[in-house]
Amino acid sequence: MNESGEQAFLSWLAARADVGASGDVGDGNVGDDMAVCAWADGAVLASVDQCLDGVHFDSKIHVPEAIAGKAVKRSLSDCAAMGCRPVALLVSAALPIGSGLEYAKRLHVGAEAAAGRHGARIVGGDTAAWGHPLALSVTALGRAESKPVTRRGAKAGDGVFVSGPLGGSILGRHMTFEPRIELGVRLAGTGVVHSMMDISDGLSRDLPRLLVGLGAEIDAHAIPIHADAIALAAKTGRSAIHHALHDGEDYELLLTAAQAPLDVLIRIGTVTAGGGMVLRSGDTRDVLAPLGWDHEV
Amino acid sequence: MNESGEQAFLSWLAARADVGASGDVGDGNVGDDMAVCAWADGAVLASVDQCLDGVHFDSKIHVPEAIAGKAVKRSLSDCAAMGCRPVALLVSAALPIGSGLEYAKRLHVGAEAAAGRHGARIVGGDTAAWGHPLALSVTALGRAESKPVTRRGAKAGDGVFVSGPLGGSILGRHMTFEPRIELGVRLAGTGVVHSMMDISDGLSRDLPRLLVGLGAEIDAHAIPIHADAIALAAKTGRSAIHHALHDGEDYELLLTAAQAPLDVLIRIGTVTAGGGMVLRSGDTRDVLAPLGWDHEV
Repeated sequence: MNESGEQAFLSWLAARADVGASGDVGDGNVGDDMAVCAWADGAVLASVDQCLDGVHFDSKIHVPEAIAGKAVKRSLSDCAAMGCRPVALLVSAALPIGSGLEYAKRLHVGAEAAAGRHGARIVGGDTAAWGHPLALSVTALGRAESKPVTRRGAKAGDGVFVSGPLGGSILGRHMTFEPRIELGVRLAGTGVVHSMMDISDGLSRDLPRLLVGLGAEIDAHAIPIHADAIALAAKTGRSAIHHALHDGEDYELLLTAAQAPLDVLIRIGTVTAGGGMVLRSGDTRDVLAPLGWDHEV
Repeated sequence: MNESGEQAFLSWLAARADVGASGDVGDGNVGDDMAVCAWADGAVLASVDQCLDGVHFDSKIHVPEAIAGKAVKRSLSDCAAMGCRPVALLVSAALPIGSGLEYAKRLHVGAEAAAGRHGARIVGGDTAAWGHPLALSVTALGRAESKPVTRRGAKAGDGVFVSGPLGGSILGRHMTFEPRIELGVRLAGTGVVHSMMDISDGLSRDLPRLLVGLGAEIDAHAIPIHADAIALAAKTGRSAIHHALHDGEDYELLLTAAQAPLDVLIRIGTVTAGGGMVLRSGDTRDVLAPLGWDHEV
């Protein structure tokens, strides 16, 4: 058996699992066809997200630990968006031929670290090699402590809230962010959040996803602008608010609720009965068009 | 919003879900951050498998329905290998830029059809575009009707069994196979199967995975040889049994048990206390070395 390949990676994984195994989720099943996860109650929340070289990271710049960490955190951010707690993750990796066992191990270490910081474990995976760039896909399985908050529940008159400053994540935050798991779980626990998601494609593109059949009036002066948006604006010649509105990969929570469910949230506007989004700045009202990220297929 | 991109695909998916939704698993949550799956009991089985252009299929030859179908069936085969019933699937697709919405739809249709044939539903996914070949990753979530059968349980003296003829799958069966779900579930239900897996990397490479610390004596004359192995042997100049032993992607079940758990199985040998695998042919005994597929990293 060629010990330089997948088998060697699995052997390494199995040895790690022997050391670190504890708890009831996916215990000791490295090498099995499926992970067997005991589940405390009757609901499994599941999502999958990809992390692709040249799209979500640059393998020439970013170290494998950071790449796999981002892949895991993107999926964990879905848990935050639903207000559930991540429990188990499955990671698939298509590695460029010649990446080497060490690179595969470093990816795993990065994935494990990111999962561990948020109380989740990697219970399964698939590793293959091909003659193309690195592609990662991470499935998150979560457990709800309260009723999960979906994207469908916004009501006219709701406040629109975000959990933190936006824009300019490309300067580095798109790799280093941490998903808002604890906040998401607390928000779901309040029982008063009508709709919620995480901002991955940019506020102007993500907000309409909470507004099916509804509109929103957003107060330009209320949008929290990240220092990175200001720094980026100095380079691009665009305004900082442009970056806050349209940049992607903030991974902050975006939600609607009748009143502020927690006082750490920032209210940026109001859901309206009419369709469309409006950006209000003093007496000026402009149409707010989605400009964020769309994956062309 | 650019209706030619991911959003258009999600809209199409949402419309399909409105028509087809039924049951309690992942209902009506297209576009949400996670699928919410009601789960009848306390165990979730989970696995992930990739399907990569140039490795598992050839996008120049195979139609998208067949490609996605294979991706789904590879994951479903993990359910067969554990003896559990597949319930919910999540599909991630990295599409070459310019594939087009129609191609994405055809992938989904193929995935849905393969899942549906085995009682499972696609409850979530992620679609992205990049400047590289098609990469699919499918997570399967399964529910055990009996105690799942793992790879760790073989005992010296066990018979080694396979569920069908082997070899030559590259002639087409690697795309058209159907996972042995019903057989796997029935086998788990007998309670007498000690260890089980599906043959994806070839008998000679997969069997050792059931034999940690043990060996096996395989009877060359007992190995069921697929007609494809004979046809392929005529082209390659190798023997048909070589192809039956070492070719991958049969997706038949491989198991060990004290006696034949069901009479449809074919007994090909015996687990031995000593390490290593031996191929017996009449009075001749040769070392059986693993030659199957290893993903170099």
